[in-house]
Amino acid sequence: MSFLPVEVIKKKRGGAELTDAEIERFIDGYTRGSIPDYQMSALLMAIFFQGMSHAETLTLTRAMLHSGKVVDLSSVPGFKVDKHSTGGVGDKTSLILGPIVAACGVAVPMISGRGLGHTGGTLDKLESIPGFNIHFSLEQFVRAVREHDICFIGQTPEICPADRKIYALRDVTATVESLPLICASILSKKLAEGIDGLVLDVKFGSGAFMKSAEKAEELALLLMDVARLYGKKVSALLTDMNQPLGRYAGNALEIQECVEIMKNQRHPLTEDTRELSLRLSADMLLLAGQGGTREGAYRIAEETLVSGRALAKFEELCRLHGGRLAELPRAKKSHPVPATQDGFIAAFDTEAVGYTGVLLRAGRARAEDPVDPVAGIEFHRRIGESVKKGETLFTVHGDDETPFPEATKRLQKAVTYSLQKISSPVLILKTLS
Amino acid sequence: MSFLPVEVIKKKRGGAELTDAEIERFIDGYTRGSIPDYQMSALLMAIFFQGMSHAETLTLTRAMLHSGKVVDLSSVPGFKVDKHSTGGVGDKTSLILGPIVAACGVAVPMISGRGLGHTGGTLDKLESIPGFNIHFSLEQFVRAVREHDICFIGQTPEICPADRKIYALRDVTATVESLPLICASILSKKLAEGIDGLVLDVKFGSGAFMKSAEKAEELALLLMDVARLYGKKVSALLTDMNQPLGRYAGNALEIQECVEIMKNQRHPLTEDTRELSLRLSADMLLLAGQGGTREGAYRIAEETLVSGRALAKFEELCRLHGGRLAELPRAKKSHPVPATQDGFIAAFDTEAVGYTGVLLRAGRARAEDPVDPVAGIEFHRRIGESVKKGETLFTVHGDDETPFPEATKRLQKAVTYSLQKISSPVLILKTLS
Repeated sequence: MSFLPVEVIKKKRGGAELTDAEIERFIDGYTRGSIPDYQMSALLMAIFFQGMSHAETLTLTRAMLHSGKVVDLSSVPGFKVDKHSTGGVGDKTSLILGPIVAACGVAVPMISGRGLGHTGGTLDKLESIPGFNIHFSLEQFVRAVREHDICFIGQTPEICPADRKIYALRDVTATVESLPLICASILSKKLAEGIDGLVLDVKFGSGAFMKSAEKAEELALLLMDVARLYGKKVSALLTDMNQPLGRYAGNALEIQECVEIMKNQRHPLTEDTRELSLRLSADMLLLAGQGGTREGAYRIAEETLVSGRALAKFEELCRLHGGRLAELPRAKKSHPVPATQDGFIAAFDTEAVGYTGVLLRAGRARAEDPVDPVAGIEFHRRIGESVKKGETLFTVHGDDETPFPEATKRLQKAVTYSLQKISSPVLILKTLS
Repeated sequence: MSFLPVEVIKKKRGGAELTDAEIERFIDGYTRGSIPDYQMSALLMAIFFQGMSHAETLTLTRAMLHSGKVVDLSSVPGFKVDKHSTGGVGDKTSLILGPIVAACGVAVPMISGRGLGHTGGTLDKLESIPGFNIHFSLEQFVRAVREHDICFIGQTPEICPADRKIYALRDVTATVESLPLICASILSKKLAEGIDGLVLDVKFGSGAFMKSAEKAEELALLLMDVARLYGKKVSALLTDMNQPLGRYAGNALEIQECVEIMKNQRHPLTEDTRELSLRLSADMLLLAGQGGTREGAYRIAEETLVSGRALAKFEELCRLHGGRLAELPRAKKSHPVPATQDGFIAAFDTEAVGYTGVLLRAGRARAEDPVDPVAGIEFHRRIGESVKKGETLFTVHGDDETPFPEATKRLQKAVTYSLQKISSPVLILKTLS
């Protein structure tokens, strides 16, 4: 049977459904190098325009997953669950929900990413803790999950090589914003963790990849459908990313915020981080069979947090990875960013806020850029709150003051004011299960 | 000013019009190798889906044209004209209209192609004449056009390198069938000849790239519009390719057909070749200012053919290229292909007929395949004519009989019969000017 990549591209270009064999041979050929980048990018653009059925997306996910190793967690007893977020600014919930769920005895094998563009990454946050080492082999990872119910590592070369190659290509060929491609990329990596269940935090708004709630829900439903076709338990929260989450965006600053929440040091600006972490934890516990109902699972999560057991698990995690939490660094310099007028905060250009973080070196524009662990932005107001001209809206932090004036300008431009009172947006729009 | 290829791809993906600078820098970067194949193929697929305005197509054409040399024909006095056909089966009109127009004193600088897929190529036909050498330098080409008003060469490396690179990429990325890309590819090469006028033979039907007359007309109008925006005189004929043109498809066989027409040896099966050649010649002469009207120009063309002056010019052309026309080879073997039933010929799958020519080695499946000059197919019936079961519909010719049985089967399958009388299709549907 002859297999012509150009015929597969042409078929998808015409809007037809590809067969399992066509998708599998294309992904396999591309991963092994027999199909060149230029044919893959043409197929990706055809998929961008013509879409894929759920069945095709499942096959694509499976083909990408099987391009590499699936972590064998059969030696870890019980249900294994993870959370995936589509990315936002100040989104640090993994650092709280991981310890909560693990402290409840449910294994959380987390393969995480680094920050890129306007969104942060869990690995960068953890590495702001002096000594924290995320470079575990898959064998070390499995042992850690077995012994501690939690471990964080980065994507290794054995995991989803097809996804790594395709993702890099999508980034430079304007084929990122395609639901089936996003779905296959997310799920192939998550399924490679060897999990039994997955909770999705699908974000929408000015700081999310999906700007509208409708588009986010479409992605959530696709992810859930494909994960279920693959035999996994799954639920999803649609959450608001029209403003940064929590009090800080910046690696060490976010660790500090999480520790304060786990120490029950409440603060008005960290309530959303706390609440979203609890709600996601509840869904993870529920998938694992704990709590009976969503409300019951939430009570377990909250009790685990309030009791200090989540913090103890987080400290255990730090020790496991060699991190010295007590030595968490702080920025030497900070600078207030004042409001430019009186009014109610009507909106944030949250993506611009995220890119200001890149300017401060809290994030990175290119994968090879280094990040500054102490740099970041502190938030003082939420949408709907009133502010007077000259009051502090943001504080920028960092060891290097050079980018502060430019960051100040950008942050001031990222705020829209209203003279009328504005209602504050709902954090969790919907739970899908 | 920073130039990000991915932003250009994204802009076209979203359906926006690209600026001149964006198109020019993309083509220039791709030709020089700083933009990789995978970004070009993504852009090509985005153009396939979103199209291009006439202004964008003009800029693309100009950018591809200026990727290489434009032949300097300033030393050749008077109007320079060429014809371009979108390709068909048995399409040999260049070999007749070139000599007619040149014999009328109008320069015809022809840069031609080779056969690929189901369609033939002028260079392969000429090279079936023993000794015929098409490998002239551009300087030799200019001198020949100046001294003889006609010369045939192939595309040289200096001519439109961008088109050569892009065309090879389109072929393997399913981005061939895009009107602006087809237009830019055709016109950049033709304009590189340094011509003042161009007559287009845009074919439609089962043996053409454009299956419908509507699509062919759309391409013709685009080509004419862009050629005019470039300051060239242009007209177009929409012609039927629902059946092979003339009596033969095959390299030496087609030369033979042309010579017979130029010798005024009329035959019912070659009347369409003769008529189309005269009509295209008339349009070329008209663009060059001869004849006053289309009818007047047709009379000049016919007179040039009937008088033997076209044949004399063709013989002069053969001598110029070192070709020994008297030694034109003939196939050692031939085999009749009988009709499988009584009836009227209702339709040909002309593309399948063309591919049967490839099977016989009259054409090539891949650019690097050799062709057999004597192989080919002879046609005995036209659409609308009646046939009895067992009567000869085709004759296959070649030195090697091996493919004859398979060719017979394919040719028989390529014919549709009707019990009702069918009217014969009109050869020239429309003239656009």
